[in-house]
Amino acid sequence: MAKQKKQPRPKAQTPKGFRDYFGAEVNRRKEMLDQIAGVYHRYGFDALESSAVETVEALGKFLPDVDRPNEGVFAWQEFDEKDNGDWMALRYDLTAPLARVYAQHRNDLPTPYRRYAMGPVWRNEKPGPGRFRQFYQCDADTVGTASMAADAEICAMLSDTLETVGIPRGDYLVRVNNRKVMNGVLEVMGVEEGATRDAVLRTIDKFDKVGEAGVRELLGKGRLDASGAYIDGVGLEPARAEPVIAFLTSKGDTADETLANLRAAVGDSAVGAEGVNELEEMATLLAAQGYGTDRIVIDPSVVRGLGYYTGPVYEAELTFEILDEKGRKRQFGSVAGGGRYDDLVKRFTGQAVPATGVSIGVDRLLAALEAKGRVSKVDVGPVVVTVMDKSHLADYQAMVGELRQAGIRAEVYLGNPKNFGNQLKYADKRNSPIAIIAGSDEFEAGKIQIKDLVLGAKIAENATLEEWKSRPSQFECDRADMLAKVSEILEAENDG
Amino acid sequence: MAKQKKQPRPKAQTPKGFRDYFGAEVNRRKEMLDQIAGVYHRYGFDALESSAVETVEALGKFLPDVDRPNEGVFAWQEFDEKDNGDWMALRYDLTAPLARVYAQHRNDLPTPYRRYAMGPVWRNEKPGPGRFRQFYQCDADTVGTASMAADAEICAMLSDTLETVGIPRGDYLVRVNNRKVMNGVLEVMGVEEGATRDAVLRTIDKFDKVGEAGVRELLGKGRLDASGAYIDGVGLEPARAEPVIAFLTSKGDTADETLANLRAAVGDSAVGAEGVNELEEMATLLAAQGYGTDRIVIDPSVVRGLGYYTGPVYEAELTFEILDEKGRKRQFGSVAGGGRYDDLVKRFTGQAVPATGVSIGVDRLLAALEAKGRVSKVDVGPVVVTVMDKSHLADYQAMVGELRQAGIRAEVYLGNPKNFGNQLKYADKRNSPIAIIAGSDEFEAGKIQIKDLVLGAKIAENATLEEWKSRPSQFECDRADMLAKVSEILEAENDG
Repeated sequence: MAKQKKQPRPKAQTPKGFRDYFGAEVNRRKEMLDQIAGVYHRYGFDALESSAVETVEALGKFLPDVDRPNEGVFAWQEFDEKDNGDWMALRYDLTAPLARVYAQHRNDLPTPYRRYAMGPVWRNEKPGPGRFRQFYQCDADTVGTASMAADAEICAMLSDTLETVGIPRGDYLVRVNNRKVMNGVLEVMGVEEGATRDAVLRTIDKFDKVGEAGVRELLGKGRLDASGAYIDGVGLEPARAEPVIAFLTSKGDTADETLANLRAAVGDSAVGAEGVNELEEMATLLAAQGYGTDRIVIDPSVVRGLGYYTGPVYEAELTFEILDEKGRKRQFGSVAGGGRYDDLVKRFTGQAVPATGVSIGVDRLLAALEAKGRVSKVDVGPVVVTVMDKSHLADYQAMVGELRQAGIRAEVYLGNPKNFGNQLKYADKRNSPIAIIAGSDEFEAGKIQIKDLVLGAKIAENATLEEWKSRPSQFECDRADMLAKVSEILEAENDG
Repeated sequence: MAKQKKQPRPKAQTPKGFRDYFGAEVNRRKEMLDQIAGVYHRYGFDALESSAVETVEALGKFLPDVDRPNEGVFAWQEFDEKDNGDWMALRYDLTAPLARVYAQHRNDLPTPYRRYAMGPVWRNEKPGPGRFRQFYQCDADTVGTASMAADAEICAMLSDTLETVGIPRGDYLVRVNNRKVMNGVLEVMGVEEGATRDAVLRTIDKFDKVGEAGVRELLGKGRLDASGAYIDGVGLEPARAEPVIAFLTSKGDTADETLANLRAAVGDSAVGAEGVNELEEMATLLAAQGYGTDRIVIDPSVVRGLGYYTGPVYEAELTFEILDEKGRKRQFGSVAGGGRYDDLVKRFTGQAVPATGVSIGVDRLLAALEAKGRVSKVDVGPVVVTVMDKSHLADYQAMVGELRQAGIRAEVYLGNPKNFGNQLKYADKRNSPIAIIAGSDEFEAGKIQIKDLVLGAKIAENATLEEWKSRPSQFECDRADMLAKVSEILEAENDG
């Protein structure tokens, strides 16, 4: 037998594309999820937590590619007695599991079923900077109703949610479009099917990037792109391409104007008219509830997801500018999107079930609030009771016990107490507001020392300011006054 | 080419051993996690959320079995360009990821590092009734200190946590043991290594099941088990087995008595004396902080995990009785466990790092509270504004808008409004407290109808009670008074 090789030490690393979240990062996200859940709940949505693992069959993703079933999703095969069990996978979004859950439990669930779900999803994709293979989504969907009131409600709720998490009115816009209007446009152009239709759709998708003139060129002869390469066009006569241009640029100063432009663009298409009517119904309901065009606006230039959804499509954009990594100003952009998808459950049951919903990109939204300086990146640490004399450990524990009872975050320093400087360095690393110091002299006299670390840091920064110098950052007080003094300092810092 | 076969419909099912959680189930667990996090945070522990996916190498589990790397854990191989990437797996607990995180980030983390983590873990095991392959854990660990104050603190925190989530004092007990004491016992018996030691350890593990007499038999000649099979014994002379028996039965009426019994059991073993000293130090610290033996007790009969941990071992047990599925009374048992494990990071860095921590089985704890009727299994649903007249949809929306503004959960019925009975059935299924009814007559008169569904259900149940009959479960009021009347009913129901 060969000699057993000594195992090398394992690498302490997350897998590629994954990361850990520490302290304040976890807390900020949790606070945001709680705020969002609060709004969703108030709107009547019920929580759902489906399992992270689904059968690949139920997910319905990448099934054809049997050789590479874990491309796109993270998937593996179950081993049963005969070594050939089901393929399972981590969910890649929260919508596919909703479809499975609704199909599985539809007889027990209320109709319509309003549900929200929040949690991580996983994508087996090449990771990039700021692009992770596990991230949070936060969805709300209404299943089982075709009413435009459901779509209007989701848009209103999205607006309320953004304001609740700290995006003020004016800093965001929920933009609404409708797939049926686009279908109407394709109908009047006579390209409802086939290769030309697909080419037109791909061109519409590029509107965000290339703008009106670019779309015009791409629908016609073609276009020289930024890199100097020539992109072949769809080859339509300019007149035939006109309805697409009219559609994409139909946004007017008022909803009425936009709707009139859209009616013109869809001509006598029945499906087009239906789409415009849907937009009108949403606009009317939203206006009646006081959601003006400063919050929710019909905007046919929203093309993202237009191919995926079957009716209304909506997108929430943050309209303020941030500086990108190269210091250039740019709009923050989209933080949420959704729409109506009426084939949700059909794969499972054969019956079409109408549904509409929204997904908020929580991590992007957090990044936006951070970019605006509206959330703090560090948490306040605990009050640290230092250890001057190990024989008094129980007394130190009694101190933190008293502080915790009063709801104050506190701990005894539990590292090696020999080097007192290390204890203060630890308090600093924890972002502690206060250190408590008591040695045998203090215990004898019934006293403690309170070190105000926040004030201390300010004095260190502004050593010349008389204002700081006049206030002592460390002072002695009676042990019996500890709680009162600590509370006083913490309250003053919270106000400051 | 072969004709393409029509795909059969996918089954709408969770994978075997997985389940979905709905509404109140999600909310109850979240409330409990929030309560636990609150205590952990107040004790100075910082949140950590590591990725759900780890490399199999970092997890260190089941690595030898290269043919079946996903047994025990759910694992899969990454495909890179050459089709042979790393094996990755879902975490099976929160301790292995902590080891990886600490090793990876040790230069940036404070020492000691107090962290808590909560979230799902996954086990690739055969599922059974009530036994799922995804479940929640909720851990707190202190890494980087050998101080018994850290262990005492975790026990105190565990006690506080149980009371915070609703287990009153007297209904639980945190029991503490120490691995070194057991090692001392093995030393005085002269079975520190080899097959006899392993056999003795396996026997100690059975103490929970077979009791003192059983352990005596198993350490000696052997034992006839309940099924009638004869189990071979370890074959020790009765006198030589005595230290184990003395150890397991050393619990006295007071901590002092227990410690004296343990000192006798470990004789002149140095490691045994160290273990007893550690228990004494914990007992002294806990007593000084007011944690009496009604909450935390030294109990050497706690043997679960004794083989895994390296120093103190602790377990939280619920001491009240519940009825099992066959209607028999039994103690609820363990809901949390932990201990000291000083080899945590050594696999990665070669350096031993002392650590101690606890894991709470959140789902079991929830089940306990449910068994005691201390948590409600259903949530109060939204106020449902019914739709009598579709042309008034905007007015109905304005009603729910007003209620939501006041923080009241409310929604417009968005299903097909034709059958009014279905709207009330829906409200019933949602567990709604109130339905609002308004048709064109009401709108003309500026009125609405308020239907108190909770009162209505009570009247239906107790139709003979005059008390109920005298109160109308449906009444008319001014539209302007809607918010006040709804608030009044909800408050009365919250009090009742």
